[in-house]
Amino acid sequence: MELPMKVTAEICVIPMGVGVSVSRYVAACRPILEAAGLNPVLHAYGTNVEGEWDDVFAAFRECHETIHDLGAPRVFTTIKVGSRTDRAQSNQDKIDSVHAGRE
Amino acid sequence: MELPMKVTAEICVIPMGVGVSVSRYVAACRPILEAAGLNPVLHAYGTNVEGEWDDVFAAFRECHETIHDLGAPRVFTTIKVGSRTDRAQSNQDKIDSVHAGRE
Amino acid sequence: MELPMKVTAEICVIPMGVGVSVSRYVAACRPILEAAGLNPVLHAYGTNVEGEWDDVFAAFRECHETIHDLGAPRVFTTIKVGSRTDRAQSNQDKIDSVHAGRE
Amino acid sequence: MELPMKVTAEICVIPMGVGVSVSRYVAACRPILEAAGLNPVLHAYGTNVEGEWDDVFAAFRECHETIHDLGAPRVFTTIKVGSRTDRAQSNQDKIDSVHAGRE
Repeated sequence: MELPMKVTAEICVIPMGVGVSVSRYVAACRPILEAAGLNPVLHAYGTNVEGEWDDVFAAFRECHETIHDLGAPRVFTTIKVGSRTDRAQSNQDKIDSVHAGRE
Repeated sequence: MELPMKVTAEICVIPMGVGVSVSRYVAACRPILEAAGLNPVLHAYGTNVEGEWDDVFAAFRECHETIHDLGAPRVFTTIKVGSRTDRAQSNQDKIDSVHAGRE
Repeated sequence: MELPMKVTAEICVIPMGVGVSVSRYVAACRPILEAAGLNPVLHAYGTNVEGEWDDVFAAFRECHETIHDLGAPRVFTTIKVGSRTDRAQSNQDKIDSVHAGRE
Repeated sequence: MELPMKVTAEICVIPMGVGVSVSRYVAACRPILEAAGLNPVLHAYGTNVEGEWDDVFAAFRECHETIHDLGAPRVFTTIKVGSRTDRAQSNQDKIDSVHAGRE
């Protein structure tokens, strides 16, 4: 039986073959990440999320599918993902730790 | 019903909290990627694979679990993943295209 | 003569060989990025900046040097960088475009 | 006075606004990286190089400039870069370490 694995992650999608302007494709991902309960936070180079590994990557797959459905023949995505077994840590915890200069 | 989605991907795992030398953790991922039939190709900044989205990310998850089992309390991973609907393209095809100066 | 090249970028530094907690190393980068006038915005998976290519990468180099000086024998960093010739675009412009569902 | 900083790095360039096929742009980077003496090794998700920090990032900048000159209005690039003070390590050393299951 598979154990749960809580992760924090960042996704940055680049639709290719649709011209220089890609924001409407990126915007289409937000409701997917929200509906999956992943607490998405948009920034200028991606969107940060958090949740179970399987939920996170099922939602990322749905982002690819949706961007293809919107007309992009190719999608290039970069992802960062982190897991830890020593303690729970949310995306906000990570920011707070840096602001405090410790972790 | 979920349609198949063939992808090429790159994974680069960084175990944290285990000292400066991490190769044995990286080495432990190889049999996982091979057993999953993902055709892994190791390079100096990661391992390239190819296969169905769900198979690729299930194997990546297993890499995280295995690295934790080997004693790393924290794993930071970067992933690139690409899908295209216009035609099939393997990792070797991508290299061949650049060598030919076209795609 | 080298022309100016304005870029937006994201940096995410991972000190290795210093244990599982790395926030004080990440925190040491902020004053470097601020002093360089790069308008840093911290998020949970990195810091976004903007400025001239040479200024951005000189500051990123100084981050590596500082983290080594603080005692980390190894630093692994991921960077995203974007340039465009069609128009100027700040990090805030990018976020605004996605919120507007266009670019 | 600035000390030398030897790094290994990976660059993956994505020209945007030029259609779905981007290999000729990627191919144009190779002679730049070779002329800079960075020992480039192409793989399916980027090119690995090694050299002094300043030489590496001057060459990466020249890649952006060249891709723009070839007609791409926007370039999105992901970079990994590593430095270490405990010992010298080339890209080939990194691969050998993983194959040996140690570092």
